[in-house]
Amino acid sequence: MKAVILAAGRGKRLKCSRPKPLTLLLSRTLIDRVIDNLKKAGIDEIIVVYSDDRVKAELEGKAELVFNDDIGKGGGYSLLKGASAVGDEDFLLLMSDHIFDSESLVKLLSSKPNITTLCIDRNLKGHDSEDATRVLIDREGNVTSIGKELKEYNAIDTGIFYCTPDVTNITRDFAGKFSVTDVMGKLALKKKLKTFDITGDFWCDVDTREKLKEAEDILLNSLIKPTDGIISKHINRKISIKISKFLVNTHLTPNMISFISFLFGLFSAALFAMGQSIIAGIVAQISSILDGCDGEIARLKGLVSPSGAIFDAILDRYADMLIILGIIASNPQSLWLVGGLAMLGSYSISYTSSKAELRGITFTRLYEVLMNRDTRLFLIFLGGITGFLYAILVILALFTNLVAFLRIFYFSKRYE
Amino acid sequence: MKAVILAAGRGKRLKCSRPKPLTLLLSRTLIDRVIDNLKKAGIDEIIVVYSDDRVKAELEGKAELVFNDDIGKGGGYSLLKGASAVGDEDFLLLMSDHIFDSESLVKLLSSKPNITTLCIDRNLKGHDSEDATRVLIDREGNVTSIGKELKEYNAIDTGIFYCTPDVTNITRDFAGKFSVTDVMGKLALKKKLKTFDITGDFWCDVDTREKLKEAEDILLNSLIKPTDGIISKHINRKISIKISKFLVNTHLTPNMISFISFLFGLFSAALFAMGQSIIAGIVAQISSILDGCDGEIARLKGLVSPSGAIFDAILDRYADMLIILGIIASNPQSLWLVGGLAMLGSYSISYTSSKAELRGITFTRLYEVLMNRDTRLFLIFLGGITGFLYAILVILALFTNLVAFLRIFYFSKRYE
Repeated sequence: MKAVILAAGRGKRLKCSRPKPLTLLLSRTLIDRVIDNLKKAGIDEIIVVYSDDRVKAELEGKAELVFNDDIGKGGGYSLLKGASAVGDEDFLLLMSDHIFDSESLVKLLSSKPNITTLCIDRNLKGHDSEDATRVLIDREGNVTSIGKELKEYNAIDTGIFYCTPDVTNITRDFAGKFSVTDVMGKLALKKKLKTFDITGDFWCDVDTREKLKEAEDILLNSLIKPTDGIISKHINRKISIKISKFLVNTHLTPNMISFISFLFGLFSAALFAMGQSIIAGIVAQISSILDGCDGEIARLKGLVSPSGAIFDAILDRYADMLIILGIIASNPQSLWLVGGLAMLGSYSISYTSSKAELRGITFTRLYEVLMNRDTRLFLIFLGGITGFLYAILVILALFTNLVAFLRIFYFSKRYE
Repeated sequence: MKAVILAAGRGKRLKCSRPKPLTLLLSRTLIDRVIDNLKKAGIDEIIVVYSDDRVKAELEGKAELVFNDDIGKGGGYSLLKGASAVGDEDFLLLMSDHIFDSESLVKLLSSKPNITTLCIDRNLKGHDSEDATRVLIDREGNVTSIGKELKEYNAIDTGIFYCTPDVTNITRDFAGKFSVTDVMGKLALKKKLKTFDITGDFWCDVDTREKLKEAEDILLNSLIKPTDGIISKHINRKISIKISKFLVNTHLTPNMISFISFLFGLFSAALFAMGQSIIAGIVAQISSILDGCDGEIARLKGLVSPSGAIFDAILDRYADMLIILGIIASNPQSLWLVGGLAMLGSYSISYTSSKAELRGITFTRLYEVLMNRDTRLFLIFLGGITGFLYAILVILALFTNLVAFLRIFYFSKRYE
């Protein structure tokens, strides 16, 4: 299936020297994010209607580029250009300045629309503004009327459309300046426009500085993973997201950040071994926080890679073990046994998680994630600053092995 | 697709009180193995033609059972009974006393035969005997003649057939006593029987005590895995297979054997801690050998389970680490550091393998499997009996971490 992205608008309100589609949102251009979402939804044939040569230069090789030779004719004319390039078949229509979640596209496509369909949002409070396109829908989900000036309305246009050749044909009837909304309004009059509800999904029409900021915040908050442990969710992520917001503008790759986090771990181990347990504990916690950044940067930059995640995971294990070895080194005679058991239990938590992942299982219940890395390093941090290293190692040894034991028991009872 | 298994023969030559299909081969009946292979090849509708009520009792619920009311009429009559139960469609025809590899079935089916097809073996030396059914094939792979008495022949009948309704129809033309070979001979005369070559695949017509022994040996040797390390291949497997050959006749489950192997590991750890390093080393090696048996029993009994393999893997990690901790305990002051690093490296080998498995990667090159569990425990065994525990821990610490480092490097360079 093909998709058309309208990217010929100027976006004066963003007060930015770049063309609107190239506006940076957390180091990636808006249009790059739209293209990425299309690819995630399995759409590879992408047509971009542009007017500014900088857009062309940026997207060469990534999409089929169609030039809008007269932007004075409005967005409807861009649609005509794009739809003509598609030919006589259904296509997706997207705006280069509307950010959304690829899941919405997947849902729209799997609903298999048979007439032109507009994705709408019922949450008027959240999305209404002077620039929003309002929609009035009847009980069957058909569009009755659409426009920015509507007084009576019950939904907002999200800028995501599934188009049949009806759209292409109607667009040809227009002359002079006309908008996409004009085209859709005419389809609605002919009862040829229905809706698909994506209320609750993330989307944002990035047409002002405020909206850009809002989109940024939502994207950053989406970095909190449902599998995050308690410490991670309530402490580490809050800081790591702030760091990532800064790092995303640098050239650091996720793997480099994994390595930097590892170096902090090594440094903490050395400090523990030298008896500098307060600083060592703090450095361990910093390493733990930085450990969130590699994945965050990978997701923000669209560089998520399974091998990258594995690289990170193995380095994490080395940091974990070396930090405990560092603690043992501060007093081997009394710490070797609890330390050794803490090493065994800690590694077993990660090992059992990895084995579970092989079977498509993710441990998420509280007692299952209780001793994940975020908690373990936080305990070590507490041990470091309070000096109760022996006690912390005992707690680590007991609880990590207890959780691992529960997991072993789980697998012993599971038959496939 | 349906399959017919002929299981009405008596098998007098096996000199066994049980009916031939129920002859035990490594604790599983021959017919159970045939059914298991069919299921592995994706065939679930299985029709068994039987004459002895013990066969019926054994298979009730596992297959559709068709009674041969007159075994005096020969195998051809059994085929008629089975084919009639199939109806007017293609089916697989198998002998309850012919053991084979499910892969052969998969290959046969994916060749999509359009006429009746007999799987043959070109290796005359390996399979010819007074009881073998000989086949003469022309250059196009069509059967020219078939029979036990053929003087001129170039292949052996493996007892695996893909049948079209031609077989069903021709079978109806016979009267009196007739064999499957008679039916196939008639098809061959009509140029309606071609062949599929499975030379090199494992199969065995288990009709004598010698053949039973031969099949047993081949099945046992197939337990050596291509991923086995050096020590495993050349030492551990040779012993573990002998133990498994005995254990397969007991009621021990694979998980129980995993646990017994783990207990030996624990015992070794305790002995090391008490300074009994010679016995400890020997017990560690016994644990390592027993560790092969759980998987072997699982495969021999058809009880392979991913969760079982995970249960085994986690217990192995605990045994590994506790044995090293036991060694450290014998002299903590001087061994805690090398021991700790050996623990870290050893666990990392297993962890990186598990992570690699997630990406569908199996490490098989020599340097990659150099420090797998078989080698590690063998080194500990050597350390135990020679008393050079420090040296062995140094070797373990160095090489396990080196291999782990190579694997980390591998993942850091890999992009997906």
